[in-house]
Amino acid sequence: MKNQGQFSSKLQELLGPQGVVTDPSRLARYCADWSGDLAGIPLAVARPADTAGVAAVLRLCAGEGVPVVPQGGHTGLVGGAVPSPSGNELVLSLERLDRVRSVDPVNFSMVAEAGCVLETLHCVAQEHDLLLPLSLGAKGSCQIGGNIATNAGGVNVLRYGMARDLVLGLEVVLPDGRIWNGLRSLRKNNTGYDLKQLFIGSEGTLGVVTAAVLKLFPRPTQVQTVMLGLDSVSAAMGLYAAARRDLSDLLSAFELMPRGCIDLTLRAIPGLRDPLPTPAPVYVLMEASACGLVDLAELTERFLARRMELGGILDGIVATSQAQAADFWRIREGLVEAQHRHGRHLRTDVSVPISCLPGFLEQADAELARHLPAALPVVYGHVGDGNIHYNLLPPKGLPEAEVHALLEQGEALIFALVDRFGGSISAEHGIGRVKREPFEQRLSAEDRDLLRALRSGIDPHNRMSPGRLFA
Amino acid sequence: MKNQGQFSSKLQELLGPQGVVTDPSRLARYCADWSGDLAGIPLAVARPADTAGVAAVLRLCAGEGVPVVPQGGHTGLVGGAVPSPSGNELVLSLERLDRVRSVDPVNFSMVAEAGCVLETLHCVAQEHDLLLPLSLGAKGSCQIGGNIATNAGGVNVLRYGMARDLVLGLEVVLPDGRIWNGLRSLRKNNTGYDLKQLFIGSEGTLGVVTAAVLKLFPRPTQVQTVMLGLDSVSAAMGLYAAARRDLSDLLSAFELMPRGCIDLTLRAIPGLRDPLPTPAPVYVLMEASACGLVDLAELTERFLARRMELGGILDGIVATSQAQAADFWRIREGLVEAQHRHGRHLRTDVSVPISCLPGFLEQADAELARHLPAALPVVYGHVGDGNIHYNLLPPKGLPEAEVHALLEQGEALIFALVDRFGGSISAEHGIGRVKREPFEQRLSAEDRDLLRALRSGIDPHNRMSPGRLFA
Repeated sequence: MKNQGQFSSKLQELLGPQGVVTDPSRLARYCADWSGDLAGIPLAVARPADTAGVAAVLRLCAGEGVPVVPQGGHTGLVGGAVPSPSGNELVLSLERLDRVRSVDPVNFSMVAEAGCVLETLHCVAQEHDLLLPLSLGAKGSCQIGGNIATNAGGVNVLRYGMARDLVLGLEVVLPDGRIWNGLRSLRKNNTGYDLKQLFIGSEGTLGVVTAAVLKLFPRPTQVQTVMLGLDSVSAAMGLYAAARRDLSDLLSAFELMPRGCIDLTLRAIPGLRDPLPTPAPVYVLMEASACGLVDLAELTERFLARRMELGGILDGIVATSQAQAADFWRIREGLVEAQHRHGRHLRTDVSVPISCLPGFLEQADAELARHLPAALPVVYGHVGDGNIHYNLLPPKGLPEAEVHALLEQGEALIFALVDRFGGSISAEHGIGRVKREPFEQRLSAEDRDLLRALRSGIDPHNRMSPGRLFA
Repeated sequence: MKNQGQFSSKLQELLGPQGVVTDPSRLARYCADWSGDLAGIPLAVARPADTAGVAAVLRLCAGEGVPVVPQGGHTGLVGGAVPSPSGNELVLSLERLDRVRSVDPVNFSMVAEAGCVLETLHCVAQEHDLLLPLSLGAKGSCQIGGNIATNAGGVNVLRYGMARDLVLGLEVVLPDGRIWNGLRSLRKNNTGYDLKQLFIGSEGTLGVVTAAVLKLFPRPTQVQTVMLGLDSVSAAMGLYAAARRDLSDLLSAFELMPRGCIDLTLRAIPGLRDPLPTPAPVYVLMEASACGLVDLAELTERFLARRMELGGILDGIVATSQAQAADFWRIREGLVEAQHRHGRHLRTDVSVPISCLPGFLEQADAELARHLPAALPVVYGHVGDGNIHYNLLPPKGLPEAEVHALLEQGEALIFALVDRFGGSISAEHGIGRVKREPFEQRLSAEDRDLLRALRSGIDPHNRMSPGRLFA
């Protein structure tokens, strides 16, 4: 174990007193993430103010052999940015790199530092009448550097893609402390390997993202939010395919919720109303957005009129105000809180090809009813991305040890089914430490060799977020 | 030098007589690409029929120490897939891997083998009322494996992205002959590094793409093609930004051509007509496309009416038939042929941030007029991608050696200006052998180390397309 005091002094020399957290009351914030599943003890917490400071910290750590865990807004769900309990890892917080370096409205791009809070960037884009489409529940806390390092998804993936699709360029500090300047703002560039792809989604294992050039879009000036009740998941799938065509890919969200989710939310969150007069087996929360001269309200109305005639849709309401649209979204977002209130439960984040969703859901329901009838499935997701949160709530009053066993069995059953459908055990949240074991179990020899070749090629001394992702 | 006969016999044992080209009259096709700049001599030409055959060839080459150059439809422009003149490289043609393995209309995806001709895939998608948006002039010959290995661009990048953006999964044979199965058809998957990104755009240096899962889209049922005359490049830039907003990102092409290009094409290609009654300094060929319930004709009309009022647009014609739209495109495409007829000339494929285009063009025109007044600039490109073909025609009758010197000076001048604007010396065509020198000159130490770490990590014996991209 390093001498903590000595190491902190060296950090202070590099970064000044603002650059190192030593006050025990302030340290707790850097020891855990939102999942709360894991918490650790840092050797020290460094808070450099700029890229040169990050580089200095990484050079120091390289010289001293200290492992480094880069950290953003602590909103991860897989323990990737949480220090290990060993007390030998430096937490490198990017929170002070919070400048928007530039906005280019004609190039539809901005250059932002890693520590910028996502919602702040939304505001900056909006000031220029532009949209940064990356958006997720954690937007008020998560930082763009962490979003990029974990290839964040969120509610607009259907239309605008994941974080990877929104990055034009990156500035990265490499494990040895050198700065890689890939801060290009080009739409097209075919000169050699696209090195920025390496760092996007690498979960802090290959280097530290310090700044990024982000793609922006015209800001939508029209939004149509619709809550629909349908008779089946298959009807929802048909509606999705039809909406892509008929709305000419102006669809920006398409969320599926079986009735059970609505019931759970209504019971847990006071003040929410049943969204439709008559209960339906399956609900879809659909949103389309547009800017300029398109008449989106008229388009949506014609689309829905046509689909209602074709059957499968039992009822539907188009939000006529922002308040009503927000009420619809509160049901979807209240689901997360409703599950939290239930206490410990299984949270998954799987995906399958979109065409496999009905079969996957049907089989998962059947197998869980057969093998784990005590667990209550709570299932919802982004149909347009094939991304489903297939969660399980244990029965109330079950002893802790039995809850643990139940959730473990449930996860194994769901993941095995995901495998059968060619799916992913982590569509958005990543691997970190929490999902490392099931991830490694699923690697082919070729996967493993390629992953290792990259990691050891770029971080030969295994100093960046060691033990995360894979061994 | 290998014993050619012995090696060919071993190949024939693996692949059968169909799998090896020996007939000298058939060999020529495998020795050059469309650029015609480079031609080489293969040790042998292998044409395996499936992925297992590709793997067998790569295992043989690994055992025998034979370098391998994967080859698609010979439509590259930088000599990347052309064998070296040394006669010691195996050309590995993917042309017999030409099956469409499956189409999934609900997942909006298809699985195609590397040797499928791009236009064939367009037809297959269309049979399912779907669109594979990757499209380029070479579509009748180029193969999807080559498109992916070179991260092809083309005419729809503005709306749908490069080849990279259209790949959901890949099957790749690694340099040692093992098959990496990354053939996933998921929209979202955050399990570890996104390994497929490595191979996209790697120009045959890291492995051989044998099949891919491609993203499909609803097929556009409405297209509006407009030719506009404007008073300046700046007016064209303003029009571009306005079109993105007002047409709600339904814009699919936005091509810029100064008047000189129109004159050149009209002179060279018989049967073409001046597109507008009165000549204008700058022309824009704009296309928007949509499907479903949007009324694109009405939308385009309202957009143009509003922009005409604001000034900058001198004249414009909306194509009222497919034939008229095709005529507009023939002017744009005829430009390439017009330059070819001129004989040897400088062809560049640069990009700058979109907002820098007017400044870049102004300075390039000024510097060329000052330093190389004899050369005639032919400048056009995809404004929406910041991708400009800044080409130079030498004066007629100039001796060959002087032509060479003139074009070399012109390229150096243009590339230096690209550097000043933070641009790319190759937006689409790639590096191959032709652009290797200027590419390597522009690499930072960090770039070089990262590129080398990847290449030597995955192809430690430097057997895949050696000498291409970088040393």
